[in-house]
Amino acid sequence: MSDLHVYDTTLRDGAQQEGLNLSVADKLAIAAHLDELGVGFIEGGWPGANPKDTEFFARARTELRLRNATLAAFGATRRAGGRAADDPLVRALVDSQAPVVTLVAKSHVRHVESALRTTLEENLEMVRDTVSFLTAEGRRVFLDAEHFFDGYAADRAYALEVVSAAMESGAEVVALCDTNGGMLPGQVADVVADAVAATSARVGIHCHNDTGCAVANSMAAVDAGATHVQGTINGYGERTGNADLLTVVSNLQIKRGLPLLETERLREATRIAHSISEVTNVPPYSRQPYVGASAFAHKAGLHASAIKVDPDLYQHADPGLVGNDMRMLVSDMAGRASIELKGRELGYDLSGDPELLARVLAKVKDLELRGYTFDAADASFDLLLRREVEGTTQAFFDVESWRVITDARGAEDALSEATVKVRAGGQRVVATGEGNGPVNALDHALRQALAPAYPELDKLELIDFRVRILDAAHGTDAVTRVLIETSDGSTSWETIGVAGNIIEASWEALVDGVTYGLVRAGVPVR
Amino acid sequence: MSDLHVYDTTLRDGAQQEGLNLSVADKLAIAAHLDELGVGFIEGGWPGANPKDTEFFARARTELRLRNATLAAFGATRRAGGRAADDPLVRALVDSQAPVVTLVAKSHVRHVESALRTTLEENLEMVRDTVSFLTAEGRRVFLDAEHFFDGYAADRAYALEVVSAAMESGAEVVALCDTNGGMLPGQVADVVADAVAATSARVGIHCHNDTGCAVANSMAAVDAGATHVQGTINGYGERTGNADLLTVVSNLQIKRGLPLLETERLREATRIAHSISEVTNVPPYSRQPYVGASAFAHKAGLHASAIKVDPDLYQHADPGLVGNDMRMLVSDMAGRASIELKGRELGYDLSGDPELLARVLAKVKDLELRGYTFDAADASFDLLLRREVEGTTQAFFDVESWRVITDARGAEDALSEATVKVRAGGQRVVATGEGNGPVNALDHALRQALAPAYPELDKLELIDFRVRILDAAHGTDAVTRVLIETSDGSTSWETIGVAGNIIEASWEALVDGVTYGLVRAGVPVR
Repeated sequence: MSDLHVYDTTLRDGAQQEGLNLSVADKLAIAAHLDELGVGFIEGGWPGANPKDTEFFARARTELRLRNATLAAFGATRRAGGRAADDPLVRALVDSQAPVVTLVAKSHVRHVESALRTTLEENLEMVRDTVSFLTAEGRRVFLDAEHFFDGYAADRAYALEVVSAAMESGAEVVALCDTNGGMLPGQVADVVADAVAATSARVGIHCHNDTGCAVANSMAAVDAGATHVQGTINGYGERTGNADLLTVVSNLQIKRGLPLLETERLREATRIAHSISEVTNVPPYSRQPYVGASAFAHKAGLHASAIKVDPDLYQHADPGLVGNDMRMLVSDMAGRASIELKGRELGYDLSGDPELLARVLAKVKDLELRGYTFDAADASFDLLLRREVEGTTQAFFDVESWRVITDARGAEDALSEATVKVRAGGQRVVATGEGNGPVNALDHALRQALAPAYPELDKLELIDFRVRILDAAHGTDAVTRVLIETSDGSTSWETIGVAGNIIEASWEALVDGVTYGLVRAGVPVR
Repeated sequence: MSDLHVYDTTLRDGAQQEGLNLSVADKLAIAAHLDELGVGFIEGGWPGANPKDTEFFARARTELRLRNATLAAFGATRRAGGRAADDPLVRALVDSQAPVVTLVAKSHVRHVESALRTTLEENLEMVRDTVSFLTAEGRRVFLDAEHFFDGYAADRAYALEVVSAAMESGAEVVALCDTNGGMLPGQVADVVADAVAATSARVGIHCHNDTGCAVANSMAAVDAGATHVQGTINGYGERTGNADLLTVVSNLQIKRGLPLLETERLREATRIAHSISEVTNVPPYSRQPYVGASAFAHKAGLHASAIKVDPDLYQHADPGLVGNDMRMLVSDMAGRASIELKGRELGYDLSGDPELLARVLAKVKDLELRGYTFDAADASFDLLLRREVEGTTQAFFDVESWRVITDARGAEDALSEATVKVRAGGQRVVATGEGNGPVNALDHALRQALAPAYPELDKLELIDFRVRILDAAHGTDAVTRVLIETSDGSTSWETIGVAGNIIEASWEALVDGVTYGLVRAGVPVR
């Protein structure tokens, strides 16, 4: 393993993200995931300043069994004019019993004067006093030099003096923070190189993504001599977020050969990033590098034919290294090759049947011209392929008719009620369902009508519903595309419907969703 | 203005994004936004290979009035063993009548051999022949050297030979493409510098974000001598997306002082990025640099008072430069100011009535928490303000009840029928309307019911209808937001409805749309 520090601040700086609010239980769950991933340090919060964070450190001592990571408590240097030993916030850091304390300190002359309202010398004394006190208490001390890059531009000598003061008092690391996030890689490289040369510090880097360069800035700092990298999972953080720690680590490990995490742990990166987004309830970003759902998804027909020959020609890294997968998307850009590949993914070998392949391709192109988009609806594409491959198969059920009524009186909430008439399992069934919307009502009625023949459908659930009006040149005369996601509790699939009538499009996607559920579960036609 | 090319490929490479599917009308709408932003070039698609793109260029000729941008058609070099003049795909590029043709060509030896399955010499000949043919046809030719960086690593001499072949045949630009997106800034800088030194080419750069470095890589290329930058709005694109053009441009213009867009146009960046995401129906990413909703949002706390004293200490750039705003997430100052401003825009002076202002603000905050978004629905905001300013006013009409039925038999198209019961002009009216969807039917029924009292409504038309399902918060049901655009033939306005039931949300927006039509026309309550 490289001796470069991988320092995670998801629980402290990441939690500054707009709309993100973590309970103590959430924080403990995330810390366990981070430890499993293998990061070196987990910054848990600011004990003393935030009661939730005080509780986090208390509970962490008994509830967290960290096997890899060391916990760090975040806090500030002591107040101006006081003594570290008497400062209740500094005491709270000791009381947290975290082995590492990360102190934030001012390193920008204007911030010292206008935000801290003290003298430059007293600010240095606050650094010296607080670092010395905490090291004497047996803590490893890291210093976050806030606004360092802007401070360096304003007064290089003073900014570097803060770094030296911390080191001479016993700090192990001084992390240079681009607090406002406005830096570009060249600037970061120059300043870090100077700090490394001019001081005896182990230099760290802490970046924000306001110029879209947080990852590149972190890499530039490492190239310039930084040996401690801070970041957050999924790039959570205030404004545009912090440096995405998994992207930085993956780049350093896969592109640069620096062994930061054990290979087997890096393979858990995709799963862990998604698990953490389940805890934060922030929807995963599909375009996220390395671990995003789309990160290794290919759509272009142009590429698909060659991907068959040599996948490495078309991906920048092996997705397996971070636990992700290459996926082929079917779309109107698609050629024969991408359909063939998609078929293979679904278990059909279409390579020996060019006629079938051409027929499927023509069908897909026709449907996509009418508004279908199969790259977002794998299950509907699977059903289409199945029908073409197997010829006209017996349907699981026949729909005689359906109807949905939505009404409201005065200011009352609207109610929807659906009636569905189907033939399944040799019987004609009429069922009625209610819902808080027409699609919800139709879903209930359809599954109730099919329940006698297919009790397996009971565990299905409609978990997402998306609507897009296409070619809205004349409002409701336009075509409506509906995407529905159905879950069986352990996995989920997307189906699509397109029609002039939004309810009809929804019905089509519902029927596909239920049908695919039956196919997937291996249920026979009854 | 700098002579650096700002080249947008949202409509071509951006459209490769998973789940993104643009109609010809969408593409025309986005092109108009791009032109308003002031980009130099708009790559519209691949005419000949994709029927939708052929149609786009045909309609662009009559429907788009570009004031700033030049249209570019994308295509490939001719097939191996043929002649450019005889290649139907090359002909389609000429037929598109786009002034610029951007040709994609292989520059990686292994791709030539295993994907193109031709010889290295024939690939060069394909470049020469196609570029020469198109320049002879009067087109400006740009070359996209696909997989250039990987190709350069595999065989530097051949990769550079492709660049030279294109330039010698008359190409104006050779854009070096990091097609797989695996590069880091240092590599990009080295290769671009070498290409600039070793060839006579005007070098361009085309990056993908697979290492999270698309923006930094684009900047590194410009530093190394590239004078043509490709990217997409909102970073749309395959896998992790393309370089976010607005971030690159904002960095170059604001941080580096390169005048790429007129200052007044850059101030439209936030609005245009959001307008384009309304067209693509991809939810805006709140953490997006510069234009994201959170990009200049500060969580109150430590720095709140200091930010008031000197905001520049806490933001990396003036948000006004890109048309964004600093937001304090706890303080309501920003909200108050914008409501006051909005009121003034609508003809109300609220500055003298802080109590009214506070009441409106509280109402807006409550509604926005429930999913309303008034920046997209001016007319609904106008009605809200009017109700608060004028107190409870007499309504134009009272709704007793409404109902809509949608049904289908077998494979027939679904039909919708609505019944609306209202009191207007002293009379109770029951009216029925049919439509190809429930909202269409409700619209017809409502306007028919109101016709006796308000014949002025006859000329109104529902011209756009948009639906978004808002992410359900933990433990609550999803909420549907409907935006409706209504036209009176000369102008149009947007109204909003939010409810658990999609039909109820639509009804709310319909009622606001009709009411605003009456207010706007100065019709008295009857």
